[in-house]
Amino acid sequence: MQSVAADIDTLFDQVLALPGDPRDVLYEAMRHAAIGGGKRLRPLLVYAASNLFNVSRGSALRAGLAIECIHVYSLIHDDMPCMDDDDMRRGKPTVHKAFNEAVAVLAGDALQALAFEVVADPETHPDPFVRAELALELARASGPSGMAGGQMMDLEAEENRFDLPTTTRLQQLKTGALIAFCLEAGAILGHVPPEGRRGLRAYARDIGLAFQIADDLLDVEGDAAVVGKATGKDADAGKATFVSLLGVERARKQASMLVDQAIAHLAAFGAEADLLRAIARYVVERDH
Amino acid sequence: MQSVAADIDTLFDQVLALPGDPRDVLYEAMRHAAIGGGKRLRPLLVYAASNLFNVSRGSALRAGLAIECIHVYSLIHDDMPCMDDDDMRRGKPTVHKAFNEAVAVLAGDALQALAFEVVADPETHPDPFVRAELALELARASGPSGMAGGQMMDLEAEENRFDLPTTTRLQQLKTGALIAFCLEAGAILGHVPPEGRRGLRAYARDIGLAFQIADDLLDVEGDAAVVGKATGKDADAGKATFVSLLGVERARKQASMLVDQAIAHLAAFGAEADLLRAIARYVVERDH
Repeated sequence: MQSVAADIDTLFDQVLALPGDPRDVLYEAMRHAAIGGGKRLRPLLVYAASNLFNVSRGSALRAGLAIECIHVYSLIHDDMPCMDDDDMRRGKPTVHKAFNEAVAVLAGDALQALAFEVVADPETHPDPFVRAELALELARASGPSGMAGGQMMDLEAEENRFDLPTTTRLQQLKTGALIAFCLEAGAILGHVPPEGRRGLRAYARDIGLAFQIADDLLDVEGDAAVVGKATGKDADAGKATFVSLLGVERARKQASMLVDQAIAHLAAFGAEADLLRAIARYVVERDH
Repeated sequence: MQSVAADIDTLFDQVLALPGDPRDVLYEAMRHAAIGGGKRLRPLLVYAASNLFNVSRGSALRAGLAIECIHVYSLIHDDMPCMDDDDMRRGKPTVHKAFNEAVAVLAGDALQALAFEVVADPETHPDPFVRAELALELARASGPSGMAGGQMMDLEAEENRFDLPTTTRLQQLKTGALIAFCLEAGAILGHVPPEGRRGLRAYARDIGLAFQIADDLLDVEGDAAVVGKATGKDADAGKATFVSLLGVERARKQASMLVDQAIAHLAAFGAEADLLRAIARYVVERDH
């Protein structure tokens, strides 16, 4: 995990080198949000899935970098005053606090474009079919049928107290779609056809949901200093969460059951899937 | 122009069909901004360039749709209170006025993702090399080395009164990069290698600049009711514009000279470039 995180920082440092002109503030804001923080869970998932299919580490890391660009842009916009209005992220001031709101809008927008620049670049993979498929699936996971659609449901969640199926659907879009793409990216880079990706897709669906339940538990029980951002916000906003819908005990059991199920979906793979198995366990055991 | 504009509206209507779930508000906001308005100059440029290389109308329109997604998203974010703070756009309330700021952020974000979903889809072109190159060049034109970088320079322009070369560079990034990609997209769809695109690139650079000078002239002299948005804003914000730097007369002459030069770059093409020639003239003669 540490080695992948260090490599992602190095890649961000390269692609976000200051241009030395009036755009420097934009690059500084992107660097502020992107470098030196975060679990880099998504790049790690790409790397772990790529290991199943003999994909080069360089290709896996660049695909992971692109996904992290999308993840970081969504955090910048989500933290803005008109959205979740958060002052701290990963233990640092959020971008609109450290810079201003206009720069936060642009830094998010620029990171989204950068994600597609990275996946579509021949440096990520020599086969144009792979690059086009990465771009297509990344766009689907990020846009109105994926993450942005889930964010919209999240805005609606403040006024409509969603039930369990709707809350599950919200999270599948908001965080699940991008996590699922991490696994899919490994398969795309390894030229695995769609019908060979079923086990990985099922694994992704289960750990995505387990990840969100763990997040909801941290929001209720976590220490803000360790988590790196304010806690207790969803409950304060009156949003349904897995914890408010199921209670702490059932939520914890559900997460643990999903992890077992995720690992079972990897039965067709041998020791080369051990990293994916370890990540599944980490997803619910982490304290931040 | 009217036929391309009508087709773009039809395509937006299809890709933005309401899903019939809590994401409907997001789709309604995207439709509000994207459908029924705008000159559709960018899709028209893709179509006109595609005509030089026997590209199918369907491919050209879908590439034009993707570029229009980027253009519309940039308008939504640019109109927000923390950016240009505009209430009206294309004669309608801006998205944050008709909906709210959070929805405006998400609608812009979702339209950017949709742009890449459209270009990377096999329906746009059967050749994956074409799709990957479209995605790469669209990302470059939209991101920190293109439009988003130009927007950042525009924010800086309020505090630093830029000189003519810096203002030219600002506009080349803010509007020129995406306009240049319109022409490039026609060439990519037509399998024209980079070395065969020089004339089109020079044409694009010249009409991009002429377009911006005409915009600055409309900002000073235009009728807000015809232009469809507030006028005189740049001068009020103390930003350097081509008109403030050159004066009205020299700005008008410069725009006209650029149009002649743009048309000269098309000398290698015959009557099949007449639409591009007409667009070059339209760019400076329009009243909105």
